[in-house]
Amino acid sequence: MNSEPSDNSHLPSYDNVLSASKAIEGVAHRTPIWTCQTLNEQTGLELFFKCENFQKAGAFKFRGAVNAIRNLSPSDSKRGVVTHSSGNHAGALSLAAKMFGVKAHIVMPENSSAIKIAAVKEYGGLVTLCAPTLEDRLNVANAVQKETGATMVPPFDHPDVIAGQGTCAKELIEDVKNLDAIVAPIGGGGLMAGTCISTKELSPNTLIIGAEPEMADDAFRSKQAGEFIPQLNPRTIADGLRTSLGELTWPFIRNDVDQIVTISEQEILETMKSFFERSKLLIETSCNVAVAAAMSGRIDNLPVGARVGVIITGGNVDLTALPF
Amino acid sequence: MNSEPSDNSHLPSYDNVLSASKAIEGVAHRTPIWTCQTLNEQTGLELFFKCENFQKAGAFKFRGAVNAIRNLSPSDSKRGVVTHSSGNHAGALSLAAKMFGVKAHIVMPENSSAIKIAAVKEYGGLVTLCAPTLEDRLNVANAVQKETGATMVPPFDHPDVIAGQGTCAKELIEDVKNLDAIVAPIGGGGLMAGTCISTKELSPNTLIIGAEPEMADDAFRSKQAGEFIPQLNPRTIADGLRTSLGELTWPFIRNDVDQIVTISEQEILETMKSFFERSKLLIETSCNVAVAAAMSGRIDNLPVGARVGVIITGGNVDLTALPF
Repeated sequence: MNSEPSDNSHLPSYDNVLSASKAIEGVAHRTPIWTCQTLNEQTGLELFFKCENFQKAGAFKFRGAVNAIRNLSPSDSKRGVVTHSSGNHAGALSLAAKMFGVKAHIVMPENSSAIKIAAVKEYGGLVTLCAPTLEDRLNVANAVQKETGATMVPPFDHPDVIAGQGTCAKELIEDVKNLDAIVAPIGGGGLMAGTCISTKELSPNTLIIGAEPEMADDAFRSKQAGEFIPQLNPRTIADGLRTSLGELTWPFIRNDVDQIVTISEQEILETMKSFFERSKLLIETSCNVAVAAAMSGRIDNLPVGARVGVIITGGNVDLTALPF
Repeated sequence: MNSEPSDNSHLPSYDNVLSASKAIEGVAHRTPIWTCQTLNEQTGLELFFKCENFQKAGAFKFRGAVNAIRNLSPSDSKRGVVTHSSGNHAGALSLAAKMFGVKAHIVMPENSSAIKIAAVKEYGGLVTLCAPTLEDRLNVANAVQKETGATMVPPFDHPDVIAGQGTCAKELIEDVKNLDAIVAPIGGGGLMAGTCISTKELSPNTLIIGAEPEMADDAFRSKQAGEFIPQLNPRTIADGLRTSLGELTWPFIRNDVDQIVTISEQEILETMKSFFERSKLLIETSCNVAVAAAMSGRIDNLPVGARVGVIITGGNVDLTALPF
C-alpha cells in the first residue's frame, strides 16, 4: 500500500457502508421522509426531506457513533472511547456507547452550555471539562486517552464514522426513487463523504450538492482552489458547520461533489423562520443551510420539476436562544 | 322529533364521521403517529402521538372545515362561508374553502397578531376586522352573513365540524390497535365530541380522557356538577383552549368522557420545554395539556404498560413569542 494522494485504499467504501447499515439495524431509527405540497409548488421541485432530527440523540451523528462502537475489538470495548466535542457527536457517542455497555469519555469546553453538558451526562457520557481552545481540547483528550486506554472516536475524520453517516443517503435513495439531486450540508464533511459513497454506488446519475454558509465556506473555496484550505474563524450562526474538512473527508468533496451552494446568514435566518412555520419540524440551524440551498434556484443542471432529496441533519436546537 | 334533552337525534353520529372520512379523503392528510422509546420508559406506558401538527393548515381543524365546506349545497357554495375566529379554525376554513372554490369571510379581532391575519390571507380568507369583544365579533359576523348570504361555519358547535374532527380518532384507532385510552384536549369540545363518537363505535373499551388547563376547566367543572357551566375569563397560556363548551359538544363530554385530567400552568410550561427537546415536533401550547395529562400518572383505571393514544392538535406556534 503506498501513500500517494491518488491511492484511495485508506478511504471507506460502499462495503463499509453496507456493514454499517447492518451494525445500526434495529439500533438507529430508519428516519421518515417529510414532503410538503406548498414547498413543492413554491419551488417547482419535488422535495424529499430525510428527517434525522428524529434520529436517536437527535441527529445523524448517532449512525457513525454506533458503527464506530460496534467496530471496537472486545478489548478496546472494555477500555471505552473518548472524544472532544460540544455538539451532537458528544451526545451520539455517549448514547451509542451506553447501549453497548461501553464507557464514553467526553471532553467538553468549560464554556459549553449547561444544557449540552446535561444532555451528554443524561446519555451516560463521562464529562471532562477543558479550556475553550482547540489546543486544550486536544491535550485533555489525549491525556484522557493515555490514562484510560480509550479509543479516540473523532466527530467525522474516521472511516467507521464516515461509513455510518453513509447509511443516511442509502436509506434516502432506497425510499425515494429517481432522485435528481441530494443536498446535504458540509461541516467537517463526514455526512457528505458518506453521502458521496452511497450515492455514487446506488444512484450514480444523482447530482451531489453540498451546502455551506458563506461564512464557513472552506469546502467551496477548497474545491475552487483544487486543494484543501482550512476554515479560519468561522462565525456563522449555523454552529454545527463551524468546522474545517478532514483528511479523509476532503477527497470525497473534491472528487464526488458536483456543486457547493453557499448561503448567506440572512438566507439562513429567513429559511429558519419560514421552514419552522411551514414544516412543524424542529430542526437545528445548520439544517436550514441545506434547505436554503435546495430551494435557492442556484443548483446547476437541475431539470424542471426535479426530485431533490435534502438531509435534515438534526433537531437539537435550543429554543430559549433563537435568533429572532 | 322532540326536543327534550334526552333526544340525541340532533347530534352527529358515526355515520356522519364515515361521510366526513370520505369527504376529506385525498384532501386532508392522514397524519403520522409518532412514538418515543424514552418517553415510554419514563412513563411505563406505550404512547402513540397522532400528529395533527402535520395536518394541512397546521391543525386538526382542517378536517371539520373541509367536511363543512363539502356539505354545502351548490347554491350555498356560491354564497360562501363566514366565521369569526382568530385561531386555527380561521386558517383551516380559509384553506378548505379555497380548495373548493368557495369564498371564506373571516371576522378577526383587530388586535389579532399580524402573523395570524397574514396566515388567513395567505390561505385565501377575506378578512374583516372587528373590535376585540365577543359581542362585536358576533355582530360583525352576522352583518357579513346578512350582506353576503354566506353560511356560518362555527369553530366547533356544528354537526359537520364535529363529524370532521371525529375522523382524527378514527384514523388513530385504525392505525394503533388495542388502545387502552385516548387523550385529547378540550377547548370548545369539537375534537373531543368527534373523538367520543369514533371511539365509542370502533373501540368501546378504550378510556376517553379529556385534558384541560386548570385555568380553563369548564368541562371538568361541568362534568362534576352534571350541568354545563360556562368558562369565565380563562387566562391559561394554552390559548387554543380558552373556550367554553358548546350546546352540541357538551352532551358528548357529559355522557362519554371517562375522566378529565386538569393541568397546571407550571405543568404546561415544563411539558412544553421537555417535549420540544425530546420530540423535535413543533407543537402548539395547547397540545402540551394533552401530553401532560397522558404522562401525569393521574389517569384512573389505566393498566400497567397501557397503550395510550394522544392527539397532538396543531403546530401553529409563534416561536418569536415563546414563554421561556
